[in-house]
Amino acid sequence: MPYGTLYGIGLGPGDPELITLKGLRILQQTQVIAYPISRQGDESVALSILERITSLVGKEKIELLFPMSAAEPTVLKIAWEEASRKIAAHLEQGKDVAFITLGDVVLYSTFIYLFEVMREGYRHLKVEFIPGISSVSASAATASLPLGKGRERLAILPAPFDQERLQKNLEDFDTVVLLKVSQVFDQVYELLKRMNLLDKAILCQRIGLEGERIIHDLSTLVGSKVDYMSILMVKK
Amino acid sequence: MPYGTLYGIGLGPGDPELITLKGLRILQQTQVIAYPISRQGDESVALSILERITSLVGKEKIELLFPMSAAEPTVLKIAWEEASRKIAAHLEQGKDVAFITLGDVVLYSTFIYLFEVMREGYRHLKVEFIPGISSVSASAATASLPLGKGRERLAILPAPFDQERLQKNLEDFDTVVLLKVSQVFDQVYELLKRMNLLDKAILCQRIGLEGERIIHDLSTLVGSKVDYMSILMVKK
Repeated sequence: MPYGTLYGIGLGPGDPELITLKGLRILQQTQVIAYPISRQGDESVALSILERITSLVGKEKIELLFPMSAAEPTVLKIAWEEASRKIAAHLEQGKDVAFITLGDVVLYSTFIYLFEVMREGYRHLKVEFIPGISSVSASAATASLPLGKGRERLAILPAPFDQERLQKNLEDFDTVVLLKVSQVFDQVYELLKRMNLLDKAILCQRIGLEGERIIHDLSTLVGSKVDYMSILMVKK
Repeated sequence: MPYGTLYGIGLGPGDPELITLKGLRILQQTQVIAYPISRQGDESVALSILERITSLVGKEKIELLFPMSAAEPTVLKIAWEEASRKIAAHLEQGKDVAFITLGDVVLYSTFIYLFEVMREGYRHLKVEFIPGISSVSASAATASLPLGKGRERLAILPAPFDQERLQKNLEDFDTVVLLKVSQVFDQVYELLKRMNLLDKAILCQRIGLEGERIIHDLSTLVGSKVDYMSILMVKK
């Protein structure tokens, strides 16, 4: 019996219509669905979106526990290795497995860690990336703020930021997209203010999810808790 | 009668399965399809892909002539204004118009220019971006070379390049994606060689199209004509 294939599938930002035909087809054909949670008992956002995309009746689910990325690297490494063992066992029985993730699977997804562990320990098993609409792209589309045209240069930077380095990037690039900005919003706000870039910046919050919002006046957010699912875009 | 809406729709990289459900639905519901060509008599790649995605029977087509972006800015400006007039006439008759583009409509698409002209001259007409899978994302997925994870920093840069600036970006970022690299491939190759980055670089050619190829040994391309639809990825 041939081994199964592990598919990493980007579901898109949350709007069930923003999955690709290919992603949907593979999810419908695959009997085993794997998804990550960060705490025992948590619900998986990816799984709840998948349930709105296609029926999961009769499918086998593999819940994979990954502590937050802030955890000890060794703790995380053990979690990834355990996940890869579980998945490999299914693949070696000839079953395909679809690992689902919000956004685009090639852009800051949980799946990338799993891919790396699989490539190290299970080179005989096939892994495929099925691209999805990233939250970055969906934010730009929803806000009608294109990421770049012609010769414009684009940088995508995850928090935390070194202020000096961030300032250089903001000077050097036409468009700068800041990810995971919630924890450091106030510092970023101060930098943008100093650089006279506040009117070039917007915050895209929960794009594709409940509570979706585009915030143009960043001053309204200072001192408040910024949603974890937020992307800050600066376009000069 | 209410005005129609102009949709800018990213078809994805070329594989007909890589369109989103939303893009497909809007294309099926919309009676008028607009697409760009760069020379009179040229075939539109976007249109030929659309024909593989859905039936165009009974749909009205608007072919829009845009000279290559290397043309005089004034010549281009006149072309965009003429295109926006044609499209506005349809919208004002209450018809929706879908403008199709390869890849992702928010990332270096022709549609962005049209959007800007529409926003200037036709503020009463609604324009919507429908995101698609970019060639960047599809290249990363096909090559199994994720664009970034964790705290990695990503830069997306269209040619031509200032060598010194490009070198700085290659030093500063974990992943650098170079677009429209065909014209300047040999210079980029020399820089990567000097920086000892050749074994970190791949060329993704015609991803999603006929002739798709991933090239790991860049030395095989030196002095040859590199395909226009090529993306160079450097991942440290």
